Amino acid sequence: MKRRDILAAAGVGLAATALAGCNKQAETSCEPQQGGGGETFTWKMVTSWPKNFPGVGVGAERFAKLVNEMSGGRLTVKVYAAGELVPALEVFDAVSRGTAELGHGAPYYWKGKVPAAQFFCALPFGPNAAEMNAWLFKGGGMQLWEEVYKPFGVLPILCGSTGVQTAGWFNKEINSPADFQGLKMRTPGLGGEVLTKMGGTVVNLPAGEIFTALQTGAIDATEWIGPYNDLALGLHKAAKYYYTPGWQEPNVTFELDVNLKAWETLPADLQAIVRAAARDVNADMLDDYNARNMEALETLKSEGVEVRRLPDEVLARLKQVATEVVEASAAADPAAAKVYEAQSAYFKRLQAYAKVAEEDIYQIRG
Amino acid sequence: MKRRDILAAAGVGLAATALAGCNKQAETSCEPQQGGGGETFTWKMVTSWPKNFPGVGVGAERFAKLVNEMSGGRLTVKVYAAGELVPALEVFDAVSRGTAELGHGAPYYWKGKVPAAQFFCALPFGPNAAEMNAWLFKGGGMQLWEEVYKPFGVLPILCGSTGVQTAGWFNKEINSPADFQGLKMRTPGLGGEVLTKMGGTVVNLPAGEIFTALQTGAIDATEWIGPYNDLALGLHKAAKYYYTPGWQEPNVTFELDVNLKAWETLPADLQAIVRAAARDVNADMLDDYNARNMEALETLKSEGVEVRRLPDEVLARLKQVATEVVEASAAADPAAAKVYEAQSAYFKRLQAYAKVAEEDIYQIRG
Repeated sequence: MKRRDILAAAGVGLAATALAGCNKQAETSCEPQQGGGGETFTWKMVTSWPKNFPGVGVGAERFAKLVNEMSGGRLTVKVYAAGELVPALEVFDAVSRGTAELGHGAPYYWKGKVPAAQFFCALPFGPNAAEMNAWLFKGGGMQLWEEVYKPFGVLPILCGSTGVQTAGWFNKEINSPADFQGLKMRTPGLGGEVLTKMGGTVVNLPAGEIFTALQTGAIDATEWIGPYNDLALGLHKAAKYYYTPGWQEPNVTFELDVNLKAWETLPADLQAIVRAAARDVNADMLDDYNARNMEALETLKSEGVEVRRLPDEVLARLKQVATEVVEASAAADPAAAKVYEAQSAYFKRLQAYAKVAEEDIYQIRG
Repeated sequence: MKRRDILAAAGVGLAATALAGCNKQAETSCEPQQGGGGETFTWKMVTSWPKNFPGVGVGAERFAKLVNEMSGGRLTVKVYAAGELVPALEVFDAVSRGTAELGHGAPYYWKGKVPAAQFFCALPFGPNAAEMNAWLFKGGGMQLWEEVYKPFGVLPILCGSTGVQTAGWFNKEINSPADFQGLKMRTPGLGGEVLTKMGGTVVNLPAGEIFTALQTGAIDATEWIGPYNDLALGLHKAAKYYYTPGWQEPNVTFELDVNLKAWETLPADLQAIVRAAARDVNADMLDDYNARNMEALETLKSEGVEVRRLPDEVLARLKQVATEVVEASAAADPAAAKVYEAQSAYFKRLQAYAKVAEEDIYQIRG
């Protein structure tokens, strides 16, 4: 799921409309069921997602519902789909300038403006969801993230994880690194840069055009998200092989963007409610993806989809190239270099620990 | 970390004192920082943990802090260490009879009273934290858990996960299944039943006596929790080998017990706050264990600890025996049988999916 897809999936976005800041009104009564004391707030949350987008879109709606419930109506969050107030990729800007108090999107959507952002989002052959969470909450990652966004007047709060994605849908077999030569594939972002270095051709297509392009042979392959979202797009009806694992995105994290000036107007109890709701959504979305991806893959197999693992030789080459691409991307920006240096050292330590813990548990249970 | 250890670590518990139900008082003022409307509640939370117990005890304190913050003081939770109001293993009973509105402990501590409880807690060679969460929240697990506890007037809410533990500390090498013959090991619960079937002798010791017993040779081995908690107990100074992985507990979940009558007196916003705080603690505790276990294992290695993996032949035999032990335990109780049947079918599906997702990601990154 990348920049252009989301943009297109959401249709042409409307121009951003400047709106008032947080809408306050004096609260005089304090009925128990209202649960409120003092001011009430009505906040807008712009998102990068089409209406009812499975997984991540569901998470954005869950966040609003939780905050509304926990605050007893004192903080009402209204969710806007991509394009309703601002285009999918202008969520960060909209929150930065105060068009909306809240935003929900993927950090790497704004890498053009904040190159370091993508290092809080997804790394090829990088950390899984649990490792990214451990770094962010216990290894200093959140502090770095806040430092990177502060100049833009935005407070980042982790608000969603997809877990492992898939390598994508192919109509050509991948048996060796050479098979990427001339391969026309829809795979944006760092994955796309890797494909180019492998001799392939990146074709950027919006979600609505992927199926037809794959069916007509305009492209040989595409990656989207994972079984849960891929099934919804019907990609299995236009491709022969479903390759795993999702080397390009072992996990993707999503962010809640909060306008710092608006944040400072919230009482401490409502700030705590916003943080807890985001933490809940982060956990719930991963559980949702783990359960629904499992179910969707069973459905795909029952419909005859051939699930294949990329050969070791291919994965080894992809890893080599991906490392070059990620390091070059980090070196191109001082803030990105600082974040990458800190996280890669921490992830090395977590990966060493996993070998005697989480990783080995998979081995011993067979 | 098992029943007797916690009991002993907490010292001899005081006799349970019957206390009034939820303490309410009319709330007239409603300053914004107070955040409250209507009634305020002061609830007691009894726990199975000694004061400031690393990891899980920290989680219990975090829960109380979050609820107090989010409710703006409308729901005040006072945490009691094991033995302060009731002994460590009487937490479930205390909440059931209304001695306290809330409790925090491990489901398998009350398996004597509720045999099915341990299947929501930990399973040898079973699910990791992410898989247990997916089953509980997206696979029908929580509904079964609520059904099992309802006759006791208790509402269970997931409130903590440890992630992978370790196999334990040994002063005798384990090179084959035969090396368990005559092994004197402190390892309670299902792990203990497995050891007995392997020809060993289970020695139950409270936390405070493990170190000396290991040092004097009264026992040949012991398991406790993982690097984070084991280091605190200094076990590395009394044992030669630290074996991995924690086949007996790939994850342990903890529960928030809520007295159902008290729960029904809470307004909807405070109920939502309690649920979100527990979900936050569940995520935060896993992040904490993943980060601190990694750091503690580095410290242990730097102090010369020899970390060894149990041989494949040994793990294969342990798995075989563990399966027999778990199935016999499930068969002995109708409710346990129902829960085990449902969860084992679901975990089989999740484990098949992991092979093309989470599990394979560990493989490809090397």
